[in-house]
Amino acid sequence: MRVLILGAGGMIGLKLAHRLVAEGQLAGQTIEEMDLVDLVAPSAPSGEMRCHCHAVDITKDGAIDNLIAKRPNLIFHLAAMVSGAAEQDFDGGYRVNLDASRELFEVIRHAHELDGYTPRLVFASSLAVYGAPLPDPVPDDQLRAPQTSYGTQKAIVELLLDDYTRRGFLDGIGLRLPTIVIRPGGPNAAASGFFSGILREPLAGLPSRLPVSHSVKHWLASPRAAVGFLIHAAGLDKEAVGPRRTITMPGVATTVGGQIEALERVAGPEATALIEHVPDPSIAEIIDAWPRAFKAERAAALGFRAESSVDDLITVYLEEDAPGGVGL
Amino acid sequence: MRVLILGAGGMIGLKLAHRLVAEGQLAGQTIEEMDLVDLVAPSAPSGEMRCHCHAVDITKDGAIDNLIAKRPNLIFHLAAMVSGAAEQDFDGGYRVNLDASRELFEVIRHAHELDGYTPRLVFASSLAVYGAPLPDPVPDDQLRAPQTSYGTQKAIVELLLDDYTRRGFLDGIGLRLPTIVIRPGGPNAAASGFFSGILREPLAGLPSRLPVSHSVKHWLASPRAAVGFLIHAAGLDKEAVGPRRTITMPGVATTVGGQIEALERVAGPEATALIEHVPDPSIAEIIDAWPRAFKAERAAALGFRAESSVDDLITVYLEEDAPGGVGL
Repeated sequence: MRVLILGAGGMIGLKLAHRLVAEGQLAGQTIEEMDLVDLVAPSAPSGEMRCHCHAVDITKDGAIDNLIAKRPNLIFHLAAMVSGAAEQDFDGGYRVNLDASRELFEVIRHAHELDGYTPRLVFASSLAVYGAPLPDPVPDDQLRAPQTSYGTQKAIVELLLDDYTRRGFLDGIGLRLPTIVIRPGGPNAAASGFFSGILREPLAGLPSRLPVSHSVKHWLASPRAAVGFLIHAAGLDKEAVGPRRTITMPGVATTVGGQIEALERVAGPEATALIEHVPDPSIAEIIDAWPRAFKAERAAALGFRAESSVDDLITVYLEEDAPGGVGL
Repeated sequence: MRVLILGAGGMIGLKLAHRLVAEGQLAGQTIEEMDLVDLVAPSAPSGEMRCHCHAVDITKDGAIDNLIAKRPNLIFHLAAMVSGAAEQDFDGGYRVNLDASRELFEVIRHAHELDGYTPRLVFASSLAVYGAPLPDPVPDDQLRAPQTSYGTQKAIVELLLDDYTRRGFLDGIGLRLPTIVIRPGGPNAAASGFFSGILREPLAGLPSRLPVSHSVKHWLASPRAAVGFLIHAAGLDKEAVGPRRTITMPGVATTVGGQIEALERVAGPEATALIEHVPDPSIAEIIDAWPRAFKAERAAALGFRAESSVDDLITVYLEEDAPGGVGL
């Protein structure tokens, strides 16, 4: 089997590539070769597998043709301009998140019409397809009503994924990933950054700022779980998924207060004392429009599994990503 | 005010143009000029108003620029490749129903960035954005899960309409129109054709075939109501509509049996005797995936009004469209 990862230089893409190299197979099939693609060429994970690393701007003419010419059996499409950037750069967001995705589907369709090529395509969608007002928990058949250009672009690609799959041009599965906690690295400017920061920084003995109240509730999964979702999706039975090809992934529904209690259980009150509550109304307003929790019944029925507590999220981080952890 | 109607040669477009010419104003504003556009130039309604009729293929480069150069204050976007054709012609359906609509939005956006131009744009969407399984009645916040390429294209344009409106580039309102009954003219090949045919043909003393059972239920409105929806949408307060810009229009929820009973009340048993039940499983299967009825609460709150019975639908037809009626 040949695997293509678009967006392989991102945090999840890198972890996915490392895990596939380490395991050498997927859904019972040996992976012979892997193409890792991002704007900057990702570094190849060390291992037995032949990995080709490419610096490719997928919005450029012909870029996707070259990648699909190798007829990868399995494509992970994780490439995206992130939410804040797509809101700042209207043209850029549509070009990367909508047009490049549609071009990918079109190149696959033309290959399909040529020689019957029909790859499994796993697409990373987003909870940003949902917009307030939202029930808590959000059911699987909730209306997609995004309130950002990024969410609009992801919702459109979900619709295209359904239509191209229904037509038989490709075999698409979309995953709406929870907010990833604990992200490795340092503090960042994302509105969601504090969900990781209030755990990660105190675990390292560093101070962290909390911009919202303890009652704020959100839907979280670890980087390891996210990689597990992508791999599980790659091996799913096509018919079992049905016509609605994008599935909301399971997660841990927790309040910020629940996160802090878990931190105290793992690292004691000296850790939680490092969290300073500095209310930021602009961040509170953004987060307030986000979904709080999901009734992810389809994902459960299809065998997707996430962590069951914030304690687990912390454990995964300490094992895998914390300074001194085992690494990728 | 200057008005542009894209798709002005269709049944609803023609009726809309005639009514606007007859009334000479909309939402309290005088209409000075009107541009009527379709693949074949529509004929100008007779009246005082200056109407310019154009044969334009809106998928051609620059075609939309020319139309928007006149800065119409109000645009009715009714142009579309119909469902069956868009299913047959994948490229054509996406080109007309998605790409031309997006190009229209883009040309408006660039005009907006140039000189602040922000027209009201009324977009004709479709119940085809919904796909089985569906509750009965379908609520306003039902998931858009189309099962045709046409429905996919309409759902995508609904999403774009929300995003372009949220960004302030245009002031969009989308309407999901019910199935139009009684359509003037003769029998046609559309799967929905019989909803009109079983009333229209017997009213003219002609036989008609019914391909589905009496228990089949659907959502209907007259051509006159559809034109009324478009005109009402043109005058709606922007803020009252909120961020979800497309609204399911009110209609009459009726079974085929209910249609036949109404026909008997209006035209007697000699009319209903002209309906021959010739089951067609392929049509029954298509119709079975369609919505049966809607809880169109948003439309009601915004003042959209439809007929309240099949008897009314028949009355509208006899007044307006039946041979010997008053005409457009």
